[in-house]
Parts: sequence; structure tokens; C-alpha cells
Amino acid sequence: MIDTLKDIVGDSHVLTGTDMGKYSHDFTRSYAWTPLAVVRPANTDEVAAIVRLANDSKTAIVPVSGNTGLAGGARADGAIMLSLERMNAIREIRPDARIAIVEAGVVLSTLREAAEEHGLIFPLTFGAQGSAMIGGNLSTNAGGSNVLRYGNTRDLVLGVEAVLPTGEVVDLMSELHKDNSGYNLKHLLIGAEGTLGIITAAVLKLVPKPGAYATAMVAVPALDQALGLLNRLQQATGGAVEAFEYMPRSYIEQHLKTIDGAREPFEAPHEVNILVELGATAPRDTQPGPDGRAPIAAYFEDILAEFFEDGAILDAVVAQNEAQRREMWERREAAAEVTLSRQPIQNNDVAVPLDQVATFLDRANIMLGRVDPGSTAMVVSHLGDGNVHYAVWPKSQDPERMDAIMEGVEDIVLDLGGSFSAEHGIGTSKLPSMARRKNKPALAAMRAIKTALDPNNIMNPGKVLPPEN
Amino acid sequence: MIDTLKDIVGDSHVLTGTDMGKYSHDFTRSYAWTPLAVVRPANTDEVAAIVRLANDSKTAIVPVSGNTGLAGGARADGAIMLSLERMNAIREIRPDARIAIVEAGVVLSTLREAAEEHGLIFPLTFGAQGSAMIGGNLSTNAGGSNVLRYGNTRDLVLGVEAVLPTGEVVDLMSELHKDNSGYNLKHLLIGAEGTLGIITAAVLKLVPKPGAYATAMVAVPALDQALGLLNRLQQATGGAVEAFEYMPRSYIEQHLKTIDGAREPFEAPHEVNILVELGATAPRDTQPGPDGRAPIAAYFEDILAEFFEDGAILDAVVAQNEAQRREMWERREAAAEVTLSRQPIQNNDVAVPLDQVATFLDRANIMLGRVDPGSTAMVVSHLGDGNVHYAVWPKSQDPERMDAIMEGVEDIVLDLGGSFSAEHGIGTSKLPSMARRKNKPALAAMRAIKTALDPNNIMNPGKVLPPEN
Repeated sequence: MIDTLKDIVGDSHVLTGTDMGKYSHDFTRSYAWTPLAVVRPANTDEVAAIVRLANDSKTAIVPVSGNTGLAGGARADGAIMLSLERMNAIREIRPDARIAIVEAGVVLSTLREAAEEHGLIFPLTFGAQGSAMIGGNLSTNAGGSNVLRYGNTRDLVLGVEAVLPTGEVVDLMSELHKDNSGYNLKHLLIGAEGTLGIITAAVLKLVPKPGAYATAMVAVPALDQALGLLNRLQQATGGAVEAFEYMPRSYIEQHLKTIDGAREPFEAPHEVNILVELGATAPRDTQPGPDGRAPIAAYFEDILAEFFEDGAILDAVVAQNEAQRREMWERREAAAEVTLSRQPIQNNDVAVPLDQVATFLDRANIMLGRVDPGSTAMVVSHLGDGNVHYAVWPKSQDPERMDAIMEGVEDIVLDLGGSFSAEHGIGTSKLPSMARRKNKPALAAMRAIKTALDPNNIMNPGKVLPPEN
Repeated sequence: MIDTLKDIVGDSHVLTGTDMGKYSHDFTRSYAWTPLAVVRPANTDEVAAIVRLANDSKTAIVPVSGNTGLAGGARADGAIMLSLERMNAIREIRPDARIAIVEAGVVLSTLREAAEEHGLIFPLTFGAQGSAMIGGNLSTNAGGSNVLRYGNTRDLVLGVEAVLPTGEVVDLMSELHKDNSGYNLKHLLIGAEGTLGIITAAVLKLVPKPGAYATAMVAVPALDQALGLLNRLQQATGGAVEAFEYMPRSYIEQHLKTIDGAREPFEAPHEVNILVELGATAPRDTQPGPDGRAPIAAYFEDILAEFFEDGAILDAVVAQNEAQRREMWERREAAAEVTLSRQPIQNNDVAVPLDQVATFLDRANIMLGRVDPGSTAMVVSHLGDGNVHYAVWPKSQDPERMDAIMEGVEDIVLDLGGSFSAEHGIGTSKLPSMARRKNKPALAAMRAIKTALDPNNIMNPGKVLPPEN
């Protein structure tokens, strides 16, 4: 097996033993594993040859790119770990057609920088973008902070190329905005976490880079008024809201304790704090006026003043320069550091309908007080997407009580029509939730598709789909 | 069988014999068929019971809603034809969450009217919207004229409920903007043309209704400059372009000949005529100024004047009132009437990358002159989507020459990275194209999925996937 792998990719690109170090755990070190070997193909043909070898010998194969997942989706005990890192070419950027054609191993931030040279952006953005790669972004349908305006990863993808579990290459490298020619395999592969095939390349949409941003911290009287504020902002700005991020007072306080140099967002403390960012591309919004500021910033201040007048907001601070904007974003982007500042942690990445976030939090906090009195919820939310990161610092260290918290969160989420996994995916960490909570006929259909496309169950086995019994 | 169907839905909702008249042909009468029976269930449970009956008895079943498809996807010879027309409830519109929850038999224009009462729109729009229904819209992933701004049907759907070929009901009625919990069955069912299951209900996205439109006919020196114009317009307006529709001179002339009262769009004739529409929701763009016009209209005129100055456009006429706007749209929406004004017709609904439309048309016209000298191409295009309706009035009446035209168009489309089916779908009419042109491993994967979910091949059999040999 090892020799055959070396024949395919060359001796230096098959790693075994201690050379596999960095490929043997996830980046938070929540999971560790020992692959059979790590193999680093240079192109799609080599990926296909490796997959055929795995399929013929019924050997498990686990694709990995940036390895920044949070759900254990790259665990690879005894498996061939196929790293896409050498397939890192940005093959083409066509500014007129607003597309980028890239290989799976391109680092997200590298693509973002390349697009910016053309006045365009690839709008996917989140904390790990300096190491996360396109292959993993697509395979997990990554989310992040600008989904509100630009959609999830799948909404940014025109075409993909993938190696199926049989080793066949599906070429769906469409650059098209309309293509109704059979079942949508692209959307099936995106978000399948590498269990239906290995995405090797993609055609991605680019959008104009906003020429100006207007960013503010806004305090709202109550969380259940926030959606109304968002809708009014969208109405007033013609849909220019790029981000709408909720931080409760408890988060602000923990941020002040955890991060050196952290400052209060407002003079007086508020319970409901929202980071709002507008982005504008039209010259009349972006070209600096006599005061050196973009019109959108002045315009944003007028809107906020009006909202303040009628009581829709309690307070607002608009960033006056890039440094102030960065400080606002750093407060939000410190979420992982703030949340992980205490251990153990019971983490929930959930979504509810847009108008149910406040209800969810009220009910979850009541549940928490009942199941584990004295525990603390550390919440941060992509509020414009209905996505809540509900992390719990348990009072109890009892694993059964931790599970009870998870189940309690799931009960409420499902009752509100939500999802137990919003953007982090299933991997192995959410397999119990899938087994308990996913609509049974849907789960059966997923299993049927998995078996049809991967009859030997070699492709990232044991992820996404829980065992049948 | 008939008796059992009557037990499920009641006697009056099982039609046979001459009662099946209007269910026995498509609306253009290009196809006719004789169903075994037409059955009209009242709810999802009845749909599931009918499907189980069909599956147990291995009887073909063909779902139909508005029956406005153009590709023969509802042909139902000897099959149970399951009409969703009675499942026509708009269950709920939640304006704050910007969603509508609807059953499959809701007529598209009915939903559009209901949304407008809340100041919102469901942005899917096309000629047949007065009879097309949501079930068919989703099953065919319908396109239309506003895809440029709002996406295809699949981009407007948050959740679906469907009855699988086994009769099981998958409840994916998510209202969520982020939901990574397993394979995306929603996107698999959308666009599958009823071959993988029957969509019975959906959660749809609504968006703010533009408070003002600015609409113009614009003449451009050459088609290959149109994409640059679109990008400049998007840049100048912050992405406010709702529609960008191309009509060549030959279309304008045929329109003048075909439609009573039709008028020239410009004083002098131009070769490249584009209907451009901007939509605005922000009050500063929509609230009428002293002259009674919305600022966006004045703003649009300034932009067009600038483009005229630097030679990017040759001429422009901005609609000064709703009547003038309607006249511009009626010219475009007469496409079916104009195109079908001569028979026979060889129709191609294709898509190419945004920057390849001019190349496609140049090459297609050369091909046409070679394959069938004296024939005429009647072209109209959703240019902002790369979607070209390339209809041919053949000189020859020879079916083989008609096929040669279709193959010639496909050759060019595929060479340019395009698709032989942009928005009309496969049905039965494009089965030869699927067999010839679709990526073989992709087609094999589709067949594997079909077999996995519909082992008895009862669900709209013979559509989308060509026979294997």
C-alpha cells in the first residue's frame, strides 16, 4: 500500500510515523488520531489514483485541507489521510465574469488577497481564514460573519470538480449562473464533509469590494427588537448590511477580563450589544466628502439618530476610522479566545428562525438553570442569520450532566424549528445529535445516497451519518 | 387501483377518461398523453398514500402542478398523474422573518400578490406566473428575468417537504439561513423535475419590494461590450440592477411585425438593444423629488449620460412613467409570441459563461449558415445570467437537419463551457442532449442516486435521465 502510494505521488509526499505529527490532531487538539499514512497528491489524476487504490483495497480515506474544522470531521485513525495542500493554484481570475477558478488547497485568505487586486472580494470570512482552505470550506459549507449579505459557501460556488469514492472524476466546473441539466451534484458534494467524494477544484463567485464601510456598536432595549432594527436598517440602506453580530453583556464582561487592552463598547453598560457593519460600492456612497468621510458613514449616523429619537436604540458608537472599526471587530473575533478561556466547555452551534433567537435564549437559560444550576452560558451570535453559538461553562463536571445540557439545548432548538448544527457541521462530534434529531426519512435517504455513491464505505467513513442501530 | 385511489382522495378527485382532458397535454400542445388516472390529493398524507400505492404496485406516477413546463416533464402516458392543485394554501407569511410557508399548488402570481400586501416580494417572475405553481417552480428550479439580482428558484428556498418514491415524507421545512446537518436533500429535490420525489410544501424567502424602479432601453455599440456596461452599472448603483435583457435588431423587427401597436425602441435602429431595470428600496432612492420622480430615475439618467459621453452606449431611453416601463417590458415578454410566430421551430435554451455570450452567438450564426443556409435565428437573452434563448426557424424542414442544428449549438455551447439546458430543464425533450453531453461520471452518479431513492423507478420515470444504453 505505502509503496503503491509512493508510486503515485513520489516518495517525499507519502508520510508515515512521526512525520505525520501535524496531521494527527485537530487545531484545538480536541481530537487526535494516527493515520495509516499521509499522502499529498499534486493534481486531480493523482487524487483519483489514490482513491481507486483505496476503493480497490477497501481502505478508509480521509481528505484534509486546512484542518481547521471544529467537529472532528478529519479524524483519520488507520486511514489514508489525503492532504490537498499541494493543489494550491489559483488557476484563473476573470474580473469581467467575476469568477475565480481555484484548486482545493488554496488558503482562503490567499484567494481573498488575489481577488482584492482586481477590486473584488471572495466574501467568505471567518477567524481561521489564514489557514482554512477552499476544499474544506466547500466540504463543510463554511459560514462566518458575512453570510447575511453574501450567503453561505454554497451560495458562492458556481462549479466544482470532485473525485467520487469510485475514483471517477466528476467535472462540474461550470461557470454558469443558470444550468438545469440533471440533479444538482454540486450542492450534494458541498457540505457532505468529504463523505461522498473529494472536492479538488472549484469555480467561485467574486463580488465588488465595498469602497467604504460604516461600522457601529449599537445598543438595543431588548433582543426581541433586534430583528425589527435589522429590517429597518436593510430598508433604509437598500440592503447594505454586511454583518449584524450580537454580544450580550456577559460576553462583553468576559471579553474585558480575558483580553489585554479590551475596552467597554459604550460609556454605560448595556445588555444587548450589536455590531453592525454596512458596506457600499456605489461612488456616491463611498467617495469622501469635504470632511474626508464616506457619505455612507454620515448617512448611517443620520439613520441611527432617527432610531435613537424613536427609542429603537439606546446608544450607538460609529467607528470614526479604521482603528476604531478594527477594535469593534476584534471584540467580536475574540469569541473563540473568550469562550475557551474556561474549561471544560459544552459547545453548541445552533440556528433558529430569525424571529426566534430571543425566545431560544430565554428558554435555554431557564433550562440551564434547571439542569445545571450555577453554570454560565457564554453567548455570541450571527444574529442576522439566526445562528447562535451557545457555549456553556458547566458548574458540574459530570459528563452525563454535560450531555443533558446538550440535549436540553437540542430540545428547545428543535421545538423552535431550528437546527442542532448551524455552520460547524456534524463530523463525529454531532453524530449523536444526528441520530436523535434528524428527520428519520431524511436520514434514511442520506444513507441510501451514501451507499449508492460509496458502496465500500471508504470515503471519510464514520462521519456525518451515525451508525444505523 | 382506481377504487383504491378513490378511497384515498374521494370519488370526485379521481378523474378518468374524457375528464382528464386538460391534464393530457402541455400548454403549448407540443406533447399529448393519456394518463391512467388523474388524482387530486388534498394534503401530504394523501400524497404519501398515493405514492405508497404506486410503489407497491410498481405503477408510474407523474406529479404536475401548473403544467407550464416546456420540456415535456409532465408527460404521463399510462401513469397516475398526481395534481397538486388542491394543495394551494399559503399557510403563513411572517414579514419580520421574511418568509412565506406555502403548499405546492399555490399559483406563483397569487403568492406574489400576497407578499406585496406586506411590502415584500417573492422575486421569481416569468411569463407563465399566472398559472405556474410553486411545486413546479421548485421541481424545475425555474429561472426568469430577475435571476441576476435574486438568484434562481433554489436560491429563494429555505425549506421543503417532499414525499419520496417510497411514500415516506421528508420534513425539511427549515426556516433557517444556516443549517449544516447532513447532505443537502433540499437542493437535490429542487431541479430533479419530480423524479426523486414530490415536493408538497416549501418555506420561501421574501425580500423587500423595491419602492421605485428605473427602467431604460439602452443601445450598445457591440454585444461584447455589454458585460462591461453591466459591471459598470452594478458598480455605479451598488448592485441595483434587477434585469439586463438583450434583444438584437432581428428580434425588434420581428416584434414590430408580430405584435399590434409595437413601436421602435429608439428613433434610429440599433443592433444591440438592452432592457435595463434598476430597483431601489432605500427611501433616499425612492421618495419622489420636486419633479415627482424617484431619485433613482434621475440618478440613472446621470449615469447613462456619463456612459454616452465616453462612448459606452449609443443611445438610451429612460421610461418616464409606468406606461412607458410597461411598454419596454411587453416588448421583452412577447418573446414566446414573437418566437412562435413561425413554425416549425428548433428551440435552444442554453447558458454560457457571462463573458462568452457574444462569442457563442458569433459562432452559432456561422454554424447555422453552414448547416442550414437561409434559416433564421431568433434570439433573446437574459444577458446578465449568460442565458440565451436561441430559437431557429429552419429553412429546411428535414428533421435530420433540425437535429444537426441542435447538435451544432450544443458543440459550441460545450466548447465554451456552457450548458445545453439553462432554465427549461431536461424533461423528455433534452434526453438526447443529456446522453450526448453530460459528464459521464456525473450522469452515472445521478443514476445511482435515482436507483437508491426510487428502486422501482415509479417516480416520473423516463424523465431527466436518458436510458443507459
